[in-house]
Amino acid sequence: MMKAAVLGATGAVGQIFIQLLSGHPWFEVSVVAASERSTGLKYSEAAKWRLPTSIPENISNLEVVDIEPKAVRNVEDVDVVFSALPSEVAGKAEESFAEAGYFVVSNASAHRMDPDVPMLNPEVNCDHVSLIDEQRRRRKWSGAIVTNPNCSTTVLTLSMKPIYDDFGIEKMIVSTMQAISGAGYPGVASLDIVDNIIPFIKDEEEKMQIETLKIFGSPSKPADFKISASCHRVPTLDGHMEAVFIQTKHEADPESVVAAMEKFVGEPQKLKLPTAPANPIVVKHSEDRPQTRLDRMEGGGMSVVVGRVRKDSVLKGVKYIVLGHNTIRGAAGCGVLNAEYLKAKKYI
Amino acid sequence: MMKAAVLGATGAVGQIFIQLLSGHPWFEVSVVAASERSTGLKYSEAAKWRLPTSIPENISNLEVVDIEPKAVRNVEDVDVVFSALPSEVAGKAEESFAEAGYFVVSNASAHRMDPDVPMLNPEVNCDHVSLIDEQRRRRKWSGAIVTNPNCSTTVLTLSMKPIYDDFGIEKMIVSTMQAISGAGYPGVASLDIVDNIIPFIKDEEEKMQIETLKIFGSPSKPADFKISASCHRVPTLDGHMEAVFIQTKHEADPESVVAAMEKFVGEPQKLKLPTAPANPIVVKHSEDRPQTRLDRMEGGGMSVVVGRVRKDSVLKGVKYIVLGHNTIRGAAGCGVLNAEYLKAKKYI
Amino acid sequence: MMKAAVLGATGAVGQIFIQLLSGHPWFEVSVVAASERSTGLKYSEAAKWRLPTSIPENISNLEVVDIEPKAVRNVEDVDVVFSALPSEVAGKAEESFAEAGYFVVSNASAHRMDPDVPMLNPEVNCDHVSLIDEQRRRRKWSGAIVTNPNCSTTVLTLSMKPIYDDFGIEKMIVSTMQAISGAGYPGVASLDIVDNIIPFIKDEEEKMQIETLKIFGSPSKPADFKISASCHRVPTLDGHMEAVFIQTKHEADPESVVAAMEKFVGEPQKLKLPTAPANPIVVKHSEDRPQTRLDRMEGGGMSVVVGRVRKDSVLKGVKYIVLGHNTIRGAAGCGVLNAEYLKAKKYI
Amino acid sequence: MMKAAVLGATGAVGQIFIQLLSGHPWFEVSVVAASERSTGLKYSEAAKWRLPTSIPENISNLEVVDIEPKAVRNVEDVDVVFSALPSEVAGKAEESFAEAGYFVVSNASAHRMDPDVPMLNPEVNCDHVSLIDEQRRRRKWSGAIVTNPNCSTTVLTLSMKPIYDDFGIEKMIVSTMQAISGAGYPGVASLDIVDNIIPFIKDEEEKMQIETLKIFGSPSKPADFKISASCHRVPTLDGHMEAVFIQTKHEADPESVVAAMEKFVGEPQKLKLPTAPANPIVVKHSEDRPQTRLDRMEGGGMSVVVGRVRKDSVLKGVKYIVLGHNTIRGAAGCGVLNAEYLKAKKYI
Repeated sequence: MMKAAVLGATGAVGQIFIQLLSGHPWFEVSVVAASERSTGLKYSEAAKWRLPTSIPENISNLEVVDIEPKAVRNVEDVDVVFSALPSEVAGKAEESFAEAGYFVVSNASAHRMDPDVPMLNPEVNCDHVSLIDEQRRRRKWSGAIVTNPNCSTTVLTLSMKPIYDDFGIEKMIVSTMQAISGAGYPGVASLDIVDNIIPFIKDEEEKMQIETLKIFGSPSKPADFKISASCHRVPTLDGHMEAVFIQTKHEADPESVVAAMEKFVGEPQKLKLPTAPANPIVVKHSEDRPQTRLDRMEGGGMSVVVGRVRKDSVLKGVKYIVLGHNTIRGAAGCGVLNAEYLKAKKYI
Repeated sequence: MMKAAVLGATGAVGQIFIQLLSGHPWFEVSVVAASERSTGLKYSEAAKWRLPTSIPENISNLEVVDIEPKAVRNVEDVDVVFSALPSEVAGKAEESFAEAGYFVVSNASAHRMDPDVPMLNPEVNCDHVSLIDEQRRRRKWSGAIVTNPNCSTTVLTLSMKPIYDDFGIEKMIVSTMQAISGAGYPGVASLDIVDNIIPFIKDEEEKMQIETLKIFGSPSKPADFKISASCHRVPTLDGHMEAVFIQTKHEADPESVVAAMEKFVGEPQKLKLPTAPANPIVVKHSEDRPQTRLDRMEGGGMSVVVGRVRKDSVLKGVKYIVLGHNTIRGAAGCGVLNAEYLKAKKYI
Repeated sequence: MMKAAVLGATGAVGQIFIQLLSGHPWFEVSVVAASERSTGLKYSEAAKWRLPTSIPENISNLEVVDIEPKAVRNVEDVDVVFSALPSEVAGKAEESFAEAGYFVVSNASAHRMDPDVPMLNPEVNCDHVSLIDEQRRRRKWSGAIVTNPNCSTTVLTLSMKPIYDDFGIEKMIVSTMQAISGAGYPGVASLDIVDNIIPFIKDEEEKMQIETLKIFGSPSKPADFKISASCHRVPTLDGHMEAVFIQTKHEADPESVVAAMEKFVGEPQKLKLPTAPANPIVVKHSEDRPQTRLDRMEGGGMSVVVGRVRKDSVLKGVKYIVLGHNTIRGAAGCGVLNAEYLKAKKYI
Repeated sequence: MMKAAVLGATGAVGQIFIQLLSGHPWFEVSVVAASERSTGLKYSEAAKWRLPTSIPENISNLEVVDIEPKAVRNVEDVDVVFSALPSEVAGKAEESFAEAGYFVVSNASAHRMDPDVPMLNPEVNCDHVSLIDEQRRRRKWSGAIVTNPNCSTTVLTLSMKPIYDDFGIEKMIVSTMQAISGAGYPGVASLDIVDNIIPFIKDEEEKMQIETLKIFGSPSKPADFKISASCHRVPTLDGHMEAVFIQTKHEADPESVVAAMEKFVGEPQKLKLPTAPANPIVVKHSEDRPQTRLDRMEGGGMSVVVGRVRKDSVLKGVKYIVLGHNTIRGAAGCGVLNAEYLKAKKYI
C-alpha cells in the first residue's frame, strides 16, 4: 500500500477524497492536513463531516497537521499528496510540496494553466503526462504537480472525446446547469438558491473555455477550435448538467455519435485502474434522460451520462445533454484516477 | 366596461387570467367556463385556487358553465373570450366560439401555427393582426382567433426584437431553464424535480423554433434565420430563464445591444395600454442578474429582464441571459395585452 | 431460494421491494403483477423506474401479469407474495391470494386494523404473529395476511419501544415532517411543495394514533396510553422526521432513555435476519442531528436515528427527534424484514 | 413626518425595515447605519439588496454611517431608531442610543428579557409599555428601548391570545417548521437545507419558552403555565409554521376557539394603526391550510393564519396549525407596528 496525505482534508472536496480513498486497493490516507483553525485537533473534531457515510475509522482519530512538507513528513513518509486546497492557498503550498520531492495530485485551479503542468482528465489526454519531465527540468523539482480540470470542464471534455477523435470539432457552445456542491461548503447561501437560478459563476466560463482547449491540444499547444460557455447555478445538490452544441469538421449524424460514445474507452479502462468506470460515457436512450438525481451516480459517479443526441441545424453537427458528478468525476474522483494512472505509469 | 368570458377558468392559466383581469380598467370577467367536472358549481368550489391572493369577490360566486358559445351566451353577452384551455380541447372549442361571432384571445397552442391566425407578442409583431381579415374571409367567421406564443418563445422573442431590428439575426442558439408552473397543475411531480433537472419538455424545442420564425416573419412568411433550442425543466416556481447566443448580420457589440434594449418600446407602450410595462426589456447591470426569484416580477411580470450581455466568439455576435415570468408575460398577461391592443385597434 | 411475487410491482413501493429483494439471500422475485395498464408488457417497459440504481437484470424482462392468484400461479409456484398495492385495490386482492393459499406480506393499509391481522414492526411486536392462527381459523384460509404499519407509525414505534419497555408510557404527542415519497408517484405536485409546507396528510394522524396503540397492545387488545399526532408534508425526498414528546409512567431522564435506546435489540437482531440492521435505533449525539438527508440511510435505511433527547417539562418525561426512511424501514424494508421473520419462525 | 434611523440597515431584517417604511404615512427613513465595512458607501453600494422590489429611491443614495448616536445626529435629528442589529452588537449599541435620548425600537434579542424592557407584540401585551417609565427611572435614560419578540414567539403568541383570554392556558407544546430567512443572510448554507431538515436552531426553543411566558405575564411577572418547544429548520423561504397543542384551564371546543380567534382584534386594530392588519388572526377553513407559500402574505404579512383547529386528547384542549411571516410579523413588521403604537400613545 502506498501512503497518501490529503491537503485541505476537512473541506468539501477533501472529504470526498477521504471517502473515495477509504478501502482503496493502492492508496491509504495516513496524513490529513488543513488550515491553522484545525491543526492539533482530531480529524473527526476538525471536519464538519457532511457525507451520508461515516468518517472512515482509520481517519477519524488522525491529528490534523499544518499544510507544510515538514509537518506531513513528521507523521509519515507519504508517496503521494492529494490537494483539495482552495486556490488562493494552493498555489504556493503545492509548489513547496513539489519542491520538497512530493508528487502532488491537485484539484485546485492554481496551476492548471501553467504550461508545464499536466491538467489530466485521463480518458481524454493522458499523453499530457509527458509535461512532467519538462516541469521537473524547468523547476528543478524532484516532486511534481499534476492537476485535474475544473468540474464542469471534466464532464464536458469526457463527453466530447469520441466526437473529437472521430469527427473533429470546429466550434461549440455549452450552457451549464451546475449543482450547489460545486461551490464548496458553506458555499451558496440557501436564500440565494431556493426557487432561484443564478446565471453566473465567477470565472467559470473562462475556465471551461481555456481548459477545454488545453486538454484537447497537444502537451505544448492548445487546440484551436472555438468554444463559448454560459454557466448557471441551479438548485440541485450534486451533478453538473450541460447542454452542448457542436459543429464537427466531418459530417456527424446522431447515431454515429452515439455509437462512438458507447464504444469509447480510454487508457484507464485499458489499464483496468481501480477507479476507472467500465463505461466512461453511458448513453441513455429514453427521451427525458439523463436526469441529475437519477443518473449522477452512474459508474460510481465516475461515468458521464449522455442523452438526447440530436442533429443541430445551427452549428452543423449535433446537440446533446451530458451529466456528470461534479465532486466525484469532476473533482476528487478524477484526482484519484489521475494518481492511479500515474502509479500505473510508474510516475508515483 | 367590456364583458369577458374565460374558458378553462379553473386551471392554472385560467386563474392567472382571472387575477390579472380583476380590477382591469377595460375588461370585466362575467362568465367562467370549464370542463364538465366543474359545471354547475360556484367558481370558488370548482377551482383549487393556487395563488397567494384571494379569488376576486365578483368571481367567487359565478356559476361555472360549459365550454360552449350557447352556455356563455345564456349568462351574458360578452365582448371577448379569453381561452386558457388545454390544447387538446382548445382546437375545436375556440373554432366554435369564433364561428359563433366571438373574438377569442387564446393561450393555447392549437391554432398558433395556422397561417391565418396571428400569434402575437405585441411589442414584437403587432402588424400580424392583419391576418385577422384573411382569417375571417377564409373561414367565413364573424369572430376570430388570436393567440399568444408559447411561454418560452414569448420571453425569448421580446428580448430579441431590438437586436433583430438594429443588427439583423443570422443564427441563434437558446438553452432554457424553465419553471415548473410552465407545466400547469398538477403538472410536474415533486419526486421528478426536487434535487433534479429534467432536460426534456415535450414539443417545447420544436415550438420555440418554429414560433420564433413565424413571429419574426412577415404575416405571410416565416423569417429565415436559423435557430436551435435545448429546453430543460428546473426546480423554480415561476420564471423561465434562457441563455441566448446570437449571430447578428451586422456587427453588434454588447454595449450597442444593451443600448438598443434599454431604449426599446413597442406599440403597447406607445398606446399606453393598461397592461404594457413601461420598459418591456429591463437590463440589469450587476454581473449575477437576472435571477429567477428576484427579477421575475419586474414590470408586474410583464417585462423581460436581460443581463450578462457579452461578446460571443462562436456565433459572431452576443450572448446574454433573459428571464421572463412564464404565466404572466409568457401566458395570461400576454393574452390580456393582446386583447388590449385589439381593442385599441378596434378589432374588439 | 424461495420464490416471491410482488403485487403492484411497477409503483413506487413496488420498485423498492424489487430493489431490496435483488440479491436477497432467501427470496427471489419471479413474478411481477400490476394493474391492467401494465399486464402483458415487460417489466422494464411497464415501470417508470425512478430509482438511481438500475432495474435488476432478472426482473427487467419478466412479463407483468394480472393481480390474481391464477395469473401468478401460471408463471411460478411462489412461496410468498409481497403486496405494494394501493389500499383501494389491496383489500379484495390480498384476501383472494390468502384464500388461494398464499402468504401475503403487505404494505397496504386495507387490513392493518383487522383484529385478526398482525401489523408487524418486528423489533416491536413480533409476538403478534400469534394472530395468524386465529386469522386462518376464522377465515378458513390456508394462506394468510401480515401487514406492516404506516410509514410514520413504523418509525415512531421503533423509537418508542425501549421507552415503553423500561419506563412505561402514559401519554404522548408527535409532530411529523414527512417526505414527499410518502405520497407515492406522481403523488405530491411540485407546485404544492416547492417553498411550501402542507400541514395535512389525509388520514395520517388517525392512522398514527390507532396503529401505535394496536402495536403496543397485546395481540387481542390495544394499549391504553393517550397519543395525539399532527402530520405535515415537507419538501424532502425521503425520510420522515418526527418530534416526539412522551410522558413516561416511571421517571425517565434523557441519559437513561439514550442508554436504553442504544442497547436495544429486537428479535430480528437476535435471529440475525438478513435485512435486520445491527442497531435498530442509532442515537446521534451532536446537537443538530438527525438530519433527513444525512441520516436516512443509516443501517441501509432500516435503522431509525434519534437525537436531541431532552427533558420535557410539559409532558413529564422526554422529548426527542426521530428520523426513519419512509420507503425502506417505513414500507418495503419492513415488509421484507417481516417475511424474513415469518420464514425464520417457519410460517412461510 | 417623523424622521427615523435604521441600525443594521444593510442586513436581511434591515432591508425589510426599509421596505416597510417606504411610503409609510408617519415615519421616513433619513439615516442608515451599519458596520464599518459599509460606512462611507452609498446604501445601494453597501447593501446586497435581496428583495424582489427595488431599493426605495430616497434611500438608495443615503450614505451609510457608523452605528453611533453622534454619527446619526450628524446627518439628521431623528425621532425614532429602528434596530436590526445582530444581537452581539445590539446590546451595547442600543444602550448608547437610549442613553443619548433616542427611542430605540429593536428586533434584537439582546434586551428582550431585561425585566424593565417591554417585549411587545402589540395585539397581545401592549400594556407592557408601562415598563418604559421604570426603565428610564432605573437607567436614567431620556431615551428608551422597546423590543419585539423572536419571530417564532411572535407568531405563536398572537395565535394564543384569544385562547388565553377566553379559556386560560395550563400547558402547551409547540413544534415548529421555520423558514431559512429566519437565519438571516447568508445564514443557512444551501447544502444544509436542500432535501433536508435541521431539527435544531440555536437557543430558539429556550427563547420561545421564556419569551412566551414574559409576554403573557404582567409587566412585572411572567405567566406561570408550562410550555415546551421543539424547533426545526425546513426548506421554505419565508413563513414559520407551528403545530400547537394547548391544554386550556376551561373547556374549549374547536368551534369556540375558532370563533374567539375570528372575532379577535387588539389595540392596534382599535387605534387603526397604519401597519395593523384588519384581522390579526385569519382562520382558514379548508382542511389543508394554512400553507407556507400560499398564506404567508395574509394581511400584508402582518396577520397570522390558523387552520386545522382540532380537539386534542392528550393535552385536554385543542391542537392547531399557525403560520406567520417571520421577517414581517415576526421581525421588522412587528417593530414598525410597535413604533406606531408608541407614537399613538405619545411615547415617541
